[in-house]
Amino acid sequence: MVEPQPASPRLNGEEDMTGAETNMRLKLPIICFILEIILIILFGVLVQYDYEVDAREWHNKLNPGNKSHSEHNGHPESNSHSESKVHSNYDNDFYYRYPSFQDVHVMIFIGFGFLMTFLQRYGFSSVGFNFLIAAFSLQWATLMQGFFHGMHGGKIHIGVESMINADFCTGAVLISFGAVLGKTSPVQLLVMAIFEVTLFSVNEFILLTVLGAKDAGGSMTIHTFGAYFGLMVTRILYRPNLDKSKHKNCSVYHSDLFAMIGTIYLWMFWPSFNSAVTAHGDDQHRTALNTYYSLAACTLSTYGMSALTAHDGKLDMVHIQNAALAGGVAAGTAGEMMLTPVGSMIVGFLAGIISVLGYKYLSPILEEKLKVQDTCGVHNLHGMPGVLGAIVGAVTAAVATTDIYGKGMEDVFPDVAKGNITASYQGVRQAISLAVTLGMALVGGLIVGFLLKLPIYGAPPDTICFEDNIYWEVPGDEEEDHQDKATVRMTETERLNA
Amino acid sequence: MVEPQPASPRLNGEEDMTGAETNMRLKLPIICFILEIILIILFGVLVQYDYEVDAREWHNKLNPGNKSHSEHNGHPESNSHSESKVHSNYDNDFYYRYPSFQDVHVMIFIGFGFLMTFLQRYGFSSVGFNFLIAAFSLQWATLMQGFFHGMHGGKIHIGVESMINADFCTGAVLISFGAVLGKTSPVQLLVMAIFEVTLFSVNEFILLTVLGAKDAGGSMTIHTFGAYFGLMVTRILYRPNLDKSKHKNCSVYHSDLFAMIGTIYLWMFWPSFNSAVTAHGDDQHRTALNTYYSLAACTLSTYGMSALTAHDGKLDMVHIQNAALAGGVAAGTAGEMMLTPVGSMIVGFLAGIISVLGYKYLSPILEEKLKVQDTCGVHNLHGMPGVLGAIVGAVTAAVATTDIYGKGMEDVFPDVAKGNITASYQGVRQAISLAVTLGMALVGGLIVGFLLKLPIYGAPPDTICFEDNIYWEVPGDEEEDHQDKATVRMTETERLNA
Amino acid sequence: MVEPQPASPRLNGEEDMTGAETNMRLKLPIICFILEIILIILFGVLVQYDYEVDAREWHNKLNPGNKSHSEHNGHPESNSHSESKVHSNYDNDFYYRYPSFQDVHVMIFIGFGFLMTFLQRYGFSSVGFNFLIAAFSLQWATLMQGFFHGMHGGKIHIGVESMINADFCTGAVLISFGAVLGKTSPVQLLVMAIFEVTLFSVNEFILLTVLGAKDAGGSMTIHTFGAYFGLMVTRILYRPNLDKSKHKNCSVYHSDLFAMIGTIYLWMFWPSFNSAVTAHGDDQHRTALNTYYSLAACTLSTYGMSALTAHDGKLDMVHIQNAALAGGVAAGTAGEMMLTPVGSMIVGFLAGIISVLGYKYLSPILEEKLKVQDTCGVHNLHGMPGVLGAIVGAVTAAVATTDIYGKGMEDVFPDVAKGNITASYQGVRQAISLAVTLGMALVGGLIVGFLLKLPIYGAPPDTICFEDNIYWEVPGDEEEDHQDKATVRMTETERLNA
Repeated sequence: MVEPQPASPRLNGEEDMTGAETNMRLKLPIICFILEIILIILFGVLVQYDYEVDAREWHNKLNPGNKSHSEHNGHPESNSHSESKVHSNYDNDFYYRYPSFQDVHVMIFIGFGFLMTFLQRYGFSSVGFNFLIAAFSLQWATLMQGFFHGMHGGKIHIGVESMINADFCTGAVLISFGAVLGKTSPVQLLVMAIFEVTLFSVNEFILLTVLGAKDAGGSMTIHTFGAYFGLMVTRILYRPNLDKSKHKNCSVYHSDLFAMIGTIYLWMFWPSFNSAVTAHGDDQHRTALNTYYSLAACTLSTYGMSALTAHDGKLDMVHIQNAALAGGVAAGTAGEMMLTPVGSMIVGFLAGIISVLGYKYLSPILEEKLKVQDTCGVHNLHGMPGVLGAIVGAVTAAVATTDIYGKGMEDVFPDVAKGNITASYQGVRQAISLAVTLGMALVGGLIVGFLLKLPIYGAPPDTICFEDNIYWEVPGDEEEDHQDKATVRMTETERLNA
Repeated sequence: MVEPQPASPRLNGEEDMTGAETNMRLKLPIICFILEIILIILFGVLVQYDYEVDAREWHNKLNPGNKSHSEHNGHPESNSHSESKVHSNYDNDFYYRYPSFQDVHVMIFIGFGFLMTFLQRYGFSSVGFNFLIAAFSLQWATLMQGFFHGMHGGKIHIGVESMINADFCTGAVLISFGAVLGKTSPVQLLVMAIFEVTLFSVNEFILLTVLGAKDAGGSMTIHTFGAYFGLMVTRILYRPNLDKSKHKNCSVYHSDLFAMIGTIYLWMFWPSFNSAVTAHGDDQHRTALNTYYSLAACTLSTYGMSALTAHDGKLDMVHIQNAALAGGVAAGTAGEMMLTPVGSMIVGFLAGIISVLGYKYLSPILEEKLKVQDTCGVHNLHGMPGVLGAIVGAVTAAVATTDIYGKGMEDVFPDVAKGNITASYQGVRQAISLAVTLGMALVGGLIVGFLLKLPIYGAPPDTICFEDNIYWEVPGDEEEDHQDKATVRMTETERLNA
Repeated sequence: MVEPQPASPRLNGEEDMTGAETNMRLKLPIICFILEIILIILFGVLVQYDYEVDAREWHNKLNPGNKSHSEHNGHPESNSHSESKVHSNYDNDFYYRYPSFQDVHVMIFIGFGFLMTFLQRYGFSSVGFNFLIAAFSLQWATLMQGFFHGMHGGKIHIGVESMINADFCTGAVLISFGAVLGKTSPVQLLVMAIFEVTLFSVNEFILLTVLGAKDAGGSMTIHTFGAYFGLMVTRILYRPNLDKSKHKNCSVYHSDLFAMIGTIYLWMFWPSFNSAVTAHGDDQHRTALNTYYSLAACTLSTYGMSALTAHDGKLDMVHIQNAALAGGVAAGTAGEMMLTPVGSMIVGFLAGIISVLGYKYLSPILEEKLKVQDTCGVHNLHGMPGVLGAIVGAVTAAVATTDIYGKGMEDVFPDVAKGNITASYQGVRQAISLAVTLGMALVGGLIVGFLLKLPIYGAPPDTICFEDNIYWEVPGDEEEDHQDKATVRMTETERLNA
């Protein structure tokens, strides 16, 4: 099984695989440099520090009243807070958002990146392409979201909250990446990111600003959008002969352990994710707590369902790695509301069940009948749980009362608090937002899918999907290592005999 | 060595191993669903948001004076703070506890989970069962601790501090898991968790509330309790024929690297662990600092002892992975006291020496003479260092003076500050607490051990311990991967020759 | 390829390799114990809690005006803040530095530790020696930096900021470790650390205190110093016959994935690293934001350059693992200044290009022509980007105006704000600081290099470099594991047939 001198055949292998069509030598540098230069120019023209980041503005100790995040998420308290004539350096929002930001950051780069390393020979691409498209998307998202969240005298103001929102937008792109994992070139992924980030920002603007919906944890804006966008893209990119790479589309022992690093980090930091941009005070506190219990309940139902649906009662790593996270997705909209701990647990419990059933029974159908080749099963982890979360959010909003929220209503449902609308109408807004999101995602994915079908991006042939060494210099394995040890021992013995 | 078609024999292997007795198809789903449904019902009846989490309560801007954590750990300052008529959203305890919570959370799920992946073929179970029992335990602990920490009008109030305490309680269960690692079924572990969490809460109540002991980092409540409880359980579950699985009870190169992920995270975040629920201000600051230096000193003594006790001066990964953490355990009680930096270093230095000696000389004796099969050596990492930490805490408390603590005495030793008792009597309280903890752990472990001996939980046979594929669908290894690469190359060559 | 009974030959192998000269049985324990005992004595004599850590001092509610960090980094605001007669426990600097500290801590132990695990058979040493020398260095740095940052009545005052600074100093040692990786014994590394920490503190004192330079993220003090110190040491320790270990000086598939854990953590937390000790408020906020965009831009240029410089357009893991981080290094000095987002992106963009070019074309030249065997290519990741960062810092400082900084000038350039010097002179200070750092690093490395050349430290022979099992008990590999599975299956079958 092990080649006498593994190096050379692998090299041949690599050369074989490097047909002009998949060679990234020019394609990737060109797109990377063009995109980054465009970003630099646009940042130079359009982007400024937020007043909490700018040395002069901050030290003026006066609140310009344009804290981008108060506009975006409307925090009465943070305004009232900032309106205080004098503020201490310890009042800088950095101290109340940055720890959440770092947790979100870990979810985006370690969580998503390693979650996708489950494939036996796609670890470099999973972590590496995740890294590349995330690094691009967060810059592009800063511009797109800044534009839609409102310019300030023709300038986009950025700070820790815009960084969190940029990471959020990036999350949606990475969810879509999960659907096409192993079947796309890095150039294709960057092109997808350009359009998806743009569309995400439009959708987010419609939901949060036009419709006045609440979605702090992004059940709709991030998970539902990212999942259905990606599913439509992978449907358009359908590969009839993908079974030729079937033998690569599975895990090995250690690749599953690497994937668990991603899973556990996503699971642990999801409370920070959902609470990262909610109003300060009880709102962040409540959102984190709700998500914590939703995830815990989801984990138990996931393990139960995984064993129940296995022919011999053995747990399936695919379920543990993914379905156990559905509770975080499903708590993304209602998490900041008075969902109550028990409500959160019920939501998580259901999310886990739905997700495992999806992996077990729905995914095969989607692939055979609808020709949707969903590598990571994002429909089960982000799609259905995202829709569930949106529905739970709509219902929870519809039943909100001043008796329950008191003055806190201003933070969660400002329009209801102002008396502009009724709680049930807020629920309608939430429901409409879900429909809009699904529409935007599917239509957007359709268009972008066809764009990505163009044979100019160096996509891998059906025979070499889920394979790192088409785009990466791949080193050898433990075997050589054994030979080396043998060598070492020999050399060593010689040395001593000498 | 490499099977012609590795897949099939492995499958056979798996089927072989799936006797009715170890089949989890019904056992695991039943217990997971029953437990989660009971939890949901109890949460629905008993659990409410803390006033810092509840929208109406928090916005009432008045302190109900029932902050669960001030009761639990008695923080004069946090009360006085909350009594201020008006508070800002930035005063919410979320901002002063949540970062610590997240570090503790990482220790529980990544730290403990990956620390136990050192076994060559038990990584799925180590991370996976750790994940399952932790997700259950933190929910159950919320109820048990809430009950013993004091109900509020028949309700349990929860917030970020109760989340930290729930994670702490979970830590004790995971320590016990380390003692029985590889020899138990997930159902057995869940049953153990049910009882251990309950007993932990009783013991914690006796120590912190009845006896008025201080143990912020849990040298007694978490480490000593969890270790001796688990040691007694594994003693009762003694397997005379475990040597039939001896060849699995060891590490491979990469499994040791995965374990180091757990080790390093535990080591880095231990300062957060010990300081997570101490009083605010200097207390948290001091506890983190003391733990930081204790761990640093412990690491040097661990490396020194590991090389010294090896026949050829080679470092032993078992020591590095475990003993280097003993400094955190040993600083768990005295960390919040005026232990001084040098005091912390001495404690850590001794803890590292004791722990390595335990792994090298005591563990074999415990196994042969006392029939205690302690897979992870929790006696060396949590047991002895926990007792050391308790003693150091008792001594440090006994020598406390107002000259050293000033007004800060109120935070650390409220009863001494109030003049109710002398410092030396506080030391006696601490010593009694250690004795109580040892008693509770050993008696509790004895009873629970016999309960777990019942042949109904699907425990693995002696011949298949330390083996994932009895409870998990286990994929292949790098070998297949090689064949695949060969295949890929062939297919590819064909394609190009075509 | 796989030995019939792999255990025994490996053992022989190990015994072969354990000549008296590399045996650590006495050498390592002696140095570990002596160093730790000296540290304990010095801490006992010299070290006290900072007033924010000390129970009595903190509760006196008066500002002794000697917050070590305000002296060290001069934060007018934090003084004015502390001068307030009464302070709340929530004003303790712990809450404004500790989250940054924990991120830095992760970079030091996980980031640096795992980044170096890329070598196929040096993972134990990479993580393990990183752990050992970091644990020692942070204690020794506490003393050295405390001494140079100013004693308080003959005492060194420590708190969260001194902990961050100790971790920073440790970072420099770990950078040098990267240059000599695989070619040194743990004893050699500890000796190097003793001297490097001392020299680091002297250099830091000259730069920050004597010259009044700004270098919050350590482009000069940490990266430039650590890199050129290590490069000179490895030059002096030049091994003409190192090619005998060439076959070990490369990665395997999973070792590259482990290394990516280090890379991603360094990348994610670099904003915390650069902002950890800047002035509070806008300064920390701005530094984190600048670093975030610098790194994002750097990642795109790194991917582009990696594909462009490969003969077949395939990405090289060495570039992704290292060059993508250069943006953080290059933003280390100017990050706290009004660099603007676009400025940060340009800096990161250039850093990535320079770093990849260095790995591709400069490193081979350095090794062949200058005999600098730089295992991790620290010259490309820390050396050149560090110098770039220093230059960017000097230029950015030189063009600073009150119009841009407003009252914030006091935080960033106190001397300029006070009118003592002009901005352009501050730029000169920065440039002189770079020259001083290069001089100190090269001369220091020269001297320490010759010291480490002494044949008393048990350095590995040229034939067994980059090899764990000369200093570690190394377990077997997946193969045995296969045999075990076979065994297990047999045993199991027997059991069932019985």
